[in-house]
Amino acid sequence: MITVPRSHDGPPRILIAPGGARPTMLAAVRAGGGTVVDDPAEAEGLIWIAPRDPSRIATTLASGPDIRWVQLPFAGIEPFHGHLTSDHVWTSGKGVYAEPVAEMVLAMLLAGMRNLTGYARETTWSGHVGRNLLGARITVLGGGEITRALIPLLAPFRCQVTVLRRLAEPFEGAQRTGTLADLHTSLADADAVVVALALTPQTRHVIDAAALEAMCAHALLVNVGRGGHVDTDALVAALAAGSIGGAALDVTDPEPLPDGHALWTEPRCLITPHVGNTLEMGIPLLEARVRENVARFAAGQPLIGLVDVEAGY
Amino acid sequence: MITVPRSHDGPPRILIAPGGARPTMLAAVRAGGGTVVDDPAEAEGLIWIAPRDPSRIATTLASGPDIRWVQLPFAGIEPFHGHLTSDHVWTSGKGVYAEPVAEMVLAMLLAGMRNLTGYARETTWSGHVGRNLLGARITVLGGGEITRALIPLLAPFRCQVTVLRRLAEPFEGAQRTGTLADLHTSLADADAVVVALALTPQTRHVIDAAALEAMCAHALLVNVGRGGHVDTDALVAALAAGSIGGAALDVTDPEPLPDGHALWTEPRCLITPHVGNTLEMGIPLLEARVRENVARFAAGQPLIGLVDVEAGY
Repeated sequence: MITVPRSHDGPPRILIAPGGARPTMLAAVRAGGGTVVDDPAEAEGLIWIAPRDPSRIATTLASGPDIRWVQLPFAGIEPFHGHLTSDHVWTSGKGVYAEPVAEMVLAMLLAGMRNLTGYARETTWSGHVGRNLLGARITVLGGGEITRALIPLLAPFRCQVTVLRRLAEPFEGAQRTGTLADLHTSLADADAVVVALALTPQTRHVIDAAALEAMCAHALLVNVGRGGHVDTDALVAALAAGSIGGAALDVTDPEPLPDGHALWTEPRCLITPHVGNTLEMGIPLLEARVRENVARFAAGQPLIGLVDVEAGY
Repeated sequence: MITVPRSHDGPPRILIAPGGARPTMLAAVRAGGGTVVDDPAEAEGLIWIAPRDPSRIATTLASGPDIRWVQLPFAGIEPFHGHLTSDHVWTSGKGVYAEPVAEMVLAMLLAGMRNLTGYARETTWSGHVGRNLLGARITVLGGGEITRALIPLLAPFRCQVTVLRRLAEPFEGAQRTGTLADLHTSLADADAVVVALALTPQTRHVIDAAALEAMCAHALLVNVGRGGHVDTDALVAALAAGSIGGAALDVTDPEPLPDGHALWTEPRCLITPHVGNTLEMGIPLLEARVRENVARFAAGQPLIGLVDVEAGY
């Protein structure tokens, strides 16, 4: 458990940057017991609210010698990978968005398995297609907050859940656990495969042609991690060949998926435009996290959503 | 609790009619301790396996004076309404198909609220649309087996569930209960409305123009009951006017929905071709029920899925 040493007494002085903060975010900092400051030189903590723009974070930190803690807004922090200094404590939105994203995973599993995607595109009373999620075998790649939020949603369906993660430790609610070394074995008997990993060099293209080949012909691939987890060209080929049953992707590579891309018209593929957690859903959730972390920072308690600077998430 | 008096000792003699039974159905009768007979005159129990064809049931019963119990295959037994004699005990597939249908309800709620239906029809990276099922207010019409199976699936979403049924008795897992007399009040604050009723003269067109008018502009209508529960023309008008948020219908009126019908191209409407429970999903479930009821019949225990002959379901 890492706590962040304070350099001052009194309410923690928090800078919200790079500008344009909502009044509700200022209110969240204050509700956590913090004071909002405008000058980096006065700040002890930094709430960085631009999820994809790290460009001015280095100069901000250079102007703020007392800044010990940086809160990033999203769970996926790839844009900040070159900026994660080891002399600051970094926290991300990790876990904040887990429930809406887990809800999206369940929506995609059900839409795919019950063929709602296919039926949505029909204009005639067509035949019976679909499988039950009830009792299905689900392999989840990633043992993070999304998976933690997904397991209770799956519980009433009595699925057989396998979780693959860095360490093959038991995962609460999963029947089996393994590491990515067990990938192909775990894909081979899954009715659906859910990618809910962080994107790192090790997990890039984890679903490649060989992984798709290992999947059952009826199996559904759901990706709510990052587009780069899936080799898009290999997926297009697998869907066209019918070597997997379907795909539901909330993230794509490239992203946004360009007009005219083969996946837009692939009958067994659903594309959603990275809406696992929308801004509308996420803002109040992030603000609640900021309030909580400011209060913990003030009290010298461990912060939530700590980034492992070396692992990059 | 009604038990059925036996006219003979020994294994119950069961007729499966009107012909063409699968070997797995014969196996189910035998697994329940029954003997399969071919002659109505020898039968004590009748398993009627033609879900929409009651035409020869009267003559079969007339030739089988010892038949005390009739098992019908489906949960919706409207085709048999004129044939429900009060001198037989009737059981239906009531409850057998509840779990797959409840799964379909959850699939439709999520697909509608998270806009998967809309995204499935896009061929470009579009904007953020969608609401969470998490914490939503759900009004369910009907307190039968589908609702009983749905409640546990909704539980992890921490929804506010209102169940409207014949009697305003508490319903396990629902925050509020009422009767159809409370319909308009209960529609007015619902994010989604689920129709899971039996079709009777009292529930026909329960969702009419006035009910649709009572619903919120963002609210989703899900129908897994019967097409006749919804006034189709009123629904078309409400969707076109945007006075409700969307609809997901697994049953329609007329059914099948004819080609060219306005609902096929209504952007906020999903039509599925009565696949809440497909034959593939349902056959093993019905056979398990037959096995169980034959065993209960043999042991003089109360049968499952008893039909209220007067109520018609």
